[in-house]
Amino acid sequence: MAKSNKPPLTDRDNLSLTEVLHALSDPVRLEIVRQLDEAGEKACGKFGLDMPKSSLSHHFRILRQSGVIASEGQGTILMNRLCWKELETSFPNLIESILAGVRSEQRRPARGRTKK
Amino acid sequence: MAKSNKPPLTDRDNLSLTEVLHALSDPVRLEIVRQLDEAGEKACGKFGLDMPKSSLSHHFRILRQSGVIASEGQGTILMNRLCWKELETSFPNLIESILAGVRSEQRRPARGRTKK
Repeated sequence: MAKSNKPPLTDRDNLSLTEVLHALSDPVRLEIVRQLDEAGEKACGKFGLDMPKSSLSHHFRILRQSGVIASEGQGTILMNRLCWKELETSFPNLIESILAGVRSEQRRPARGRTKK
Repeated sequence: MAKSNKPPLTDRDNLSLTEVLHALSDPVRLEIVRQLDEAGEKACGKFGLDMPKSSLSHHFRILRQSGVIASEGQGTILMNRLCWKELETSFPNLIESILAGVRSEQRRPARGRTKK
């Protein structure tokens, strides 16, 4: 993919439910979405996530390709926003119920993962 | 895993949002869930899904391990049900909004997948 300040986005009128759910099925990506919901918009480097830049780019790419977030170059900075309106149009109440779930899990006491 | 009429289930009081979203991020698994929502309960072989038994077992296992469905041996038949109440308790409105999304996508004209 050629580098650009304007990364390709999927067709917003045609979000795929399975792609959106896949994009949101990862704790790092859910945290990015949670922070964007709180902040409105945020630059890629400002999420306080301790991981290699390549991993972070991978997570942003999946969120962007699914149409969950949109990114826009502002000078040398890539700003991200949650595509709340587009998600709400395609899948009413979905993003709200997922964000409520994220907040609810964050309030729970720490626990081990359920068995596989 | 030892074969049993009572497959192991995750702790229903502790559903994981990412595991539930992962379980629902596949078109086959969404179709299983949609049919269970309509039927109440259904035996594994009655979903009309044209795929190898091993693939189908894989999908049922992921749904079961995430706590999205529960399965119970009734004689020689494994009956499945959607864990609506458990999902609703952990993540209010989530399963309802996802099922609405499935029905909405099924009403849409067929289309190619969005680019990766």
